[in-house]
Amino acid sequence: MKKIITISREFGAGGREIGQQLAEKLGYEYFDKNLIIKAARKANLSLEDVKDLDEKTSTGFLKGLFDFYAKPLNEKLFAAQKEVIRNIGEHGNCVIVGRNANAILREYDDSLHVFIHADPYWRLQRLKAEDLSGMSEAKIAKQIAAVDRSRAKYCSYFTDTEFGVSRFYDVSLSTSSLGIDRCAEIILSMTK
Amino acid sequence: MKKIITISREFGAGGREIGQQLAEKLGYEYFDKNLIIKAARKANLSLEDVKDLDEKTSTGFLKGLFDFYAKPLNEKLFAAQKEVIRNIGEHGNCVIVGRNANAILREYDDSLHVFIHADPYWRLQRLKAEDLSGMSEAKIAKQIAAVDRSRAKYCSYFTDTEFGVSRFYDVSLSTSSLGIDRCAEIILSMTK
Repeated sequence: MKKIITISREFGAGGREIGQQLAEKLGYEYFDKNLIIKAARKANLSLEDVKDLDEKTSTGFLKGLFDFYAKPLNEKLFAAQKEVIRNIGEHGNCVIVGRNANAILREYDDSLHVFIHADPYWRLQRLKAEDLSGMSEAKIAKQIAAVDRSRAKYCSYFTDTEFGVSRFYDVSLSTSSLGIDRCAEIILSMTK
Repeated sequence: MKKIITISREFGAGGREIGQQLAEKLGYEYFDKNLIIKAARKANLSLEDVKDLDEKTSTGFLKGLFDFYAKPLNEKLFAAQKEVIRNIGEHGNCVIVGRNANAILREYDDSLHVFIHADPYWRLQRLKAEDLSGMSEAKIAKQIAAVDRSRAKYCSYFTDTEFGVSRFYDVSLSTSSLGIDRCAEIILSMTK
């Protein structure tokens, strides 16, 4: 029985939904933004700083004032997150979405590391349907590309793994090919 | 119901076994080396030449005499293989292992594109157990790395996809994490 499930995901691919479904069905604790908050407390950063820095590496994304502080702050944040993720992993019975938890908990027994991806156009349509602000398709498409790039960069910068490369996960699934619920079922069956 | 299953795989990860299991359970035709033979006939190459060139790009791997002919020969072979793979795809009810069939048949309906990978040490132990020639572990490890590199190169050279990058497959599975039979079962359930 798998005690730790990590889910890495492309933006808009449904990784969060799958994580929530799994946590509910397995009776596990679910972690994502909460991690950041806990990590921030540990590192004594204000919540505001942490939100801005979340999953961004220190170069290229943070303009103006933040540029100056970005690097040391970000590494401090990553170190704090890492400790939080390890603590969660030690307790087990958890689903962790994002934060490179697959790399951090890779050596832990009874873990299952999942990558969720989907066709960009499928993600665009999904995000558009969810968006209440009436953002244009072009803008959403740009955002998808930017978040993916940022996650890939964050992953390479802080770990010795690469975002979305199969060998760093036990299983990678396309939600646009298989559907979100079907992916959740498949992963659930793998935990047993 | 999926009519076309393509399996790309790391060397020694069990992709062939999974492909054979699937073909048997689904009553589909199984293709791998046969493809090359058919492709060779189309391209009017001798079987001997084809064996030597199989899944190698034209630079770096073929020494001596072959170097001179490698590039045009190899591209001719790839074009012929592509045509054969398309014909097989048109007929459907097939499992195709290797040969970048995922990239060639990517636009086909009712297809499932699979990548099979495994921890290098696990593959080493597996290949060692199968090897009757008493090859040293060091030599097998070197061979694993060389074949993987060659496949990655072949993939980038001839297609606009990358070997082992999740987004080019519907599903990627680790046989060292999940076991060969379990992976075959999971894929079988996805074909329905």
